Amino acid sequence: MENYLVILMFVGAAAALCFALIMAKRVLGFDEGTDKMKKISRSIRSGANAYLKRQYTIVAIFFAVMFLVLCTMAFFKMLTWFVPFAFVTGGFFSGLSGFVGMKIATNANNRTANACRTGLNKGLRVAFSAGSVMGFTVVGLGLLDISIWFTLLKYVFHCTPTEITSSMLTFGMGASSMALFARVGGGIFTKAADVGADLVGKVEAGIPEDDPRNPAVIADNVGDNVGDVAGMGADLYESYVGSIISASALGVAAFGGELKAMAVPMIMAAVGILCSIIGTFFVRTGEKTEQKTLLKALRRGTNLSAILIAIIAFPLIWFVLGKDQIGYYFAIISGLIAGVLIGFSTEYFTSDTYKPTQKLASKTETGSATVIIGGVGLGMLSTAIPIIIVGICVIVAYFVSGGGNVQGGLYGIALAAVGMLSTLGITLATDAYGPVADNAGGIAEMSGLEPQVRERTDALDSLGNTTAATGKGFAIGSAALTALALIASYIEKVKEVGADVAFKDFSVMDPVVLVGLFIGACLPFVFAALTMDAVGRAAQSIVIEVRRQFKNIKGLMTGEADPDYATCVDLCTKSSLREMILPTIVAVVTPVVVGLILGVKGVVGLLAGATVSGFLMAIFMSNSGGAWDNAKKYIEAGHHGGKGSDQHKAAVVGDTVGDPFKDTSGPSINILIKLLSMVSIVFAALVVNFSLIK
Amino acid sequence: MENYLVILMFVGAAAALCFALIMAKRVLGFDEGTDKMKKISRSIRSGANAYLKRQYTIVAIFFAVMFLVLCTMAFFKMLTWFVPFAFVTGGFFSGLSGFVGMKIATNANNRTANACRTGLNKGLRVAFSAGSVMGFTVVGLGLLDISIWFTLLKYVFHCTPTEITSSMLTFGMGASSMALFARVGGGIFTKAADVGADLVGKVEAGIPEDDPRNPAVIADNVGDNVGDVAGMGADLYESYVGSIISASALGVAAFGGELKAMAVPMIMAAVGILCSIIGTFFVRTGEKTEQKTLLKALRRGTNLSAILIAIIAFPLIWFVLGKDQIGYYFAIISGLIAGVLIGFSTEYFTSDTYKPTQKLASKTETGSATVIIGGVGLGMLSTAIPIIIVGICVIVAYFVSGGGNVQGGLYGIALAAVGMLSTLGITLATDAYGPVADNAGGIAEMSGLEPQVRERTDALDSLGNTTAATGKGFAIGSAALTALALIASYIEKVKEVGADVAFKDFSVMDPVVLVGLFIGACLPFVFAALTMDAVGRAAQSIVIEVRRQFKNIKGLMTGEADPDYATCVDLCTKSSLREMILPTIVAVVTPVVVGLILGVKGVVGLLAGATVSGFLMAIFMSNSGGAWDNAKKYIEAGHHGGKGSDQHKAAVVGDTVGDPFKDTSGPSINILIKLLSMVSIVFAALVVNFSLIK
Repeated sequence: MENYLVILMFVGAAAALCFALIMAKRVLGFDEGTDKMKKISRSIRSGANAYLKRQYTIVAIFFAVMFLVLCTMAFFKMLTWFVPFAFVTGGFFSGLSGFVGMKIATNANNRTANACRTGLNKGLRVAFSAGSVMGFTVVGLGLLDISIWFTLLKYVFHCTPTEITSSMLTFGMGASSMALFARVGGGIFTKAADVGADLVGKVEAGIPEDDPRNPAVIADNVGDNVGDVAGMGADLYESYVGSIISASALGVAAFGGELKAMAVPMIMAAVGILCSIIGTFFVRTGEKTEQKTLLKALRRGTNLSAILIAIIAFPLIWFVLGKDQIGYYFAIISGLIAGVLIGFSTEYFTSDTYKPTQKLASKTETGSATVIIGGVGLGMLSTAIPIIIVGICVIVAYFVSGGGNVQGGLYGIALAAVGMLSTLGITLATDAYGPVADNAGGIAEMSGLEPQVRERTDALDSLGNTTAATGKGFAIGSAALTALALIASYIEKVKEVGADVAFKDFSVMDPVVLVGLFIGACLPFVFAALTMDAVGRAAQSIVIEVRRQFKNIKGLMTGEADPDYATCVDLCTKSSLREMILPTIVAVVTPVVVGLILGVKGVVGLLAGATVSGFLMAIFMSNSGGAWDNAKKYIEAGHHGGKGSDQHKAAVVGDTVGDPFKDTSGPSINILIKLLSMVSIVFAALVVNFSLIK
Repeated sequence: MENYLVILMFVGAAAALCFALIMAKRVLGFDEGTDKMKKISRSIRSGANAYLKRQYTIVAIFFAVMFLVLCTMAFFKMLTWFVPFAFVTGGFFSGLSGFVGMKIATNANNRTANACRTGLNKGLRVAFSAGSVMGFTVVGLGLLDISIWFTLLKYVFHCTPTEITSSMLTFGMGASSMALFARVGGGIFTKAADVGADLVGKVEAGIPEDDPRNPAVIADNVGDNVGDVAGMGADLYESYVGSIISASALGVAAFGGELKAMAVPMIMAAVGILCSIIGTFFVRTGEKTEQKTLLKALRRGTNLSAILIAIIAFPLIWFVLGKDQIGYYFAIISGLIAGVLIGFSTEYFTSDTYKPTQKLASKTETGSATVIIGGVGLGMLSTAIPIIIVGICVIVAYFVSGGGNVQGGLYGIALAAVGMLSTLGITLATDAYGPVADNAGGIAEMSGLEPQVRERTDALDSLGNTTAATGKGFAIGSAALTALALIASYIEKVKEVGADVAFKDFSVMDPVVLVGLFIGACLPFVFAALTMDAVGRAAQSIVIEVRRQFKNIKGLMTGEADPDYATCVDLCTKSSLREMILPTIVAVVTPVVVGLILGVKGVVGLLAGATVSGFLMAIFMSNSGGAWDNAKKYIEAGHHGGKGSDQHKAAVVGDTVGDPFKDTSGPSINILIKLLSMVSIVFAALVVNFSLIK
């Protein structure tokens, strides 16, 4: 049976990549529009390419250093020799996912704008196809990487299942490191440009968003691509791969080294890909720009995929694991349902069709301070429902699985994460199309297309905000479950390298665990602070540059002279790359240092604390930011005085504060909590052998 | 020996109360100033009295209901009959502490303003004496309550040590509930008035702070008294009592029921009182208004007290516990040092003499959004150092105590909290004098005294912000340690009522503990959101009222007509009392509900999660708020454009956002994390017998 399963994995990966290729061809077949549109799109593309090139150069140095560190550890027999190489491939594929997504997005933005000249449905088709390229590239490359390593380790090097999962966890660390760089760097870039452009353009100079007179406008569009597209691609590659390999590792532990338990998550992934591809064929809409109609079109695709997966997973578990293990099926389903519910909760708190955001918009009546207080409160309150959902999911997944045995239960939790992410191909497609539509709107504005084109791109973009919120719900929920699975994997790993510990040795009443818990819980706060400060600093440099150009370039405001876009792009590139280094180093170094002082117990405490507080912080920051953004849009749609009113100005302040919340700090925390576990796993032998407190 | 110790406790309590009485007489001996000053002070006093009266009425209903619930539980033998009565006395004394503090503060504000007409030193003397009344009333009443119950239970009812500490923990719950009502209600009142007054007065109408034309100005001053004074009094009463009784309870457990271990925390408290009284005699200053000189004057007193305590504690532990138990001495010292260090860290991050706040002020150059982002970042970053300090303190206190046995180690952690709070008499005096000086400034402004008076009160007030920051550091640090001790007490209690658990049964890898951890960590977020929303709502009603008065009362802006102060006071009273109920109910009900579903393991997870994330949130919110406040003051002192500039307006937005952060949500979280444990302890029998998951 085994061989059939391996073939199925390759089939899934190949199907995803072929589908991505077909979609990419389809996107590129559309017309690029007027010369002006082509020119603008070219500037965005070249800015984004230049950024990624420099980012990858810096990241390459980090990977080279880590490679040497890992080789040294392998030399001293603290790791197998596969580890350094697995680490590098994980980083490579994660980066590649982001790169492909960005390539297609920067080629699709003007095509989407041009398609919107014909009609809304055509525009949606181009943008959604571009999103699909990204979605299926991520899952395709993820499953391909896993399949190749699995085949190599199993059939070429004849490793034991434990050795296989051990090595595979390392490419998880590679993927996580890359993802963190991409998310943090891209997130800083995009928000520095956005905040800088808004602060001077909208607030001070009073010109509209995406006005071509604003020197930071191209940088803003570049940012959407390097942050929201390339960053998100690397991020979700990491989530996807992380959930699968952590589940595989726990499967091996739960089933005493049996291969079938290890294969289940991978097969689930392959099945998920096939179901997602089917789902994409059901995404189409008419010519109404109402958000509900559009949302229904996208939902039809994702819901269909989810239902198909739920149906197919039953016989899969039945035949692969055996009918007495059917409890795991319900673990998968609980994850799938939890993901959908967290998505709904996110939507409720951030969409302007619901009360919370509408109420937030009404707070602009008393100025920016009350909007800020209201938004912070909204975000914090919105943590409650996802916490309860994840809580129920964890309890259900644990108790339906493995008949009460701890390892079986933990495998169940990991499978819930896999279930949640099984529809990633299509959910990511609906998510990634947002930045494309956003960019299309910018291009429409800058190249002076008819107002109805902008209306259509705005309809697509606004929907993008909602689907992005849902996507973030999935990303955060799966991050929490995967992080828990990774903590369990860490404990397995620690036992493997010789420490004498059991799952019950990590009581919260043990002061070492407790101190670890405190430090771990603190990390997301520190990390958020570092990334926000970075955005603040980078944005300030943009503000100064834009002000300088407004002052010094004669005829800029009257449209007689062009602004110097390139300098802003360059400034953003430099500062975001400089600023991304410290937070990433903190994430990599802290678990090792804490481990060397407090030992294994401290590390487990740290990981648990970081997971719990990271989950809360990520939801809080994402939802506050999303609600501020949509409250502003709600006012722009004509409520509370509309565009240009004092209320609108107050809403813009909220939106500006929310930018780094939702697009830099919040999503980076997802990666952080997993990277911490991955690093701990890779350095487990070091900690076990050399820690101060045993 | 025992009898001597009891006598020492009563002596300590009596000394504190007598000293408070002397100080009160001294304050009341000063002149009240001009007729206008008397009139204003009278309005503030009557507003504050009216508020407290109505607050106590509502709280009385809550206490009556809880009393009945506890009596019912006692009837079914789930509690002893002492519990309902202990619960009520705890609440009563906590409320009384706040009431006395407020009484003296409202009588000292105009006297301080008047004394500042003569000179700075005299002003400091009046304000500091008033602060001392509050400080020593809190510690005096706290120790008195403990002493009375101890004497009653031990000598009248002949209870066992375990029974004694069990009953005493209940009056901790009474004190915590009262404190939470006082902090939340008072916090909402003061910040609704403050935010409302600032938003319309400073920002919209462009009149200075404390301008008598502002209709919310009296409400603002009333708020300082009911929130910053009465609220803080009840809060610290609860911290003080909580730390002592939780340490006593763990002492009984660690020393197998020996009375001496139970007595140590109480004696430490008595010694602390006597040393603090000595310290107060060293607080005096010259006529320089420089903050450093003033700060030195106050520091001299607190440092001296701390050193005295450190010296006396050594023989105390040596003779009471025995020389082989001297490790506990170092636990106490580690707490004392940790408190001081957290205070320094708070000061570093929030005082405008250091870089972080100065940098924050410079962010006003690019508008309010960057100030908000910067302040949030600053607050989050500032959590790192206190976390490390508390981490080291916990590890040290645990390992120097009890020779590695768990219960001894936990007793050590509890003693560290007692050590940290032993100087409370004087630290609270230096803290509580701040609102008095603040009010004095308001009165000086409103009654049109010479500018130099306002300068002097401003010097005192600005110093008050720094000492308040230090005080908050102590409150937060001790809350974390006390909460940990209370979790341990909870587990002891659970064993006592028949559950078969041990300290090592609460592994973070147990899904039930883990889910508890998630829910607990979420509570401070939800609680902060509820209280902030409450402030926002209450402030909005004030804004509307103030705007109405500005519009409708002819001649108000020219000073020809008086505003209607009473309506604003009344509005604040009504809305803050209405708004305080929900957050408090959430705090009381959640641990019981979670316990009934998830059982003891879930509760321990919940308490640990709430302690960890509550500690972080409290520091983050307090420090962000403090830094925004001082950044605004820094600009008002003439930096970055000074008063009235755009930068100043941006800073005011930051300050306004920070108000509920630092004076409502942040400090309430301290109480929340302890109240959760207290409630869990009281309802332990219920949870053990009836929970869904065992």
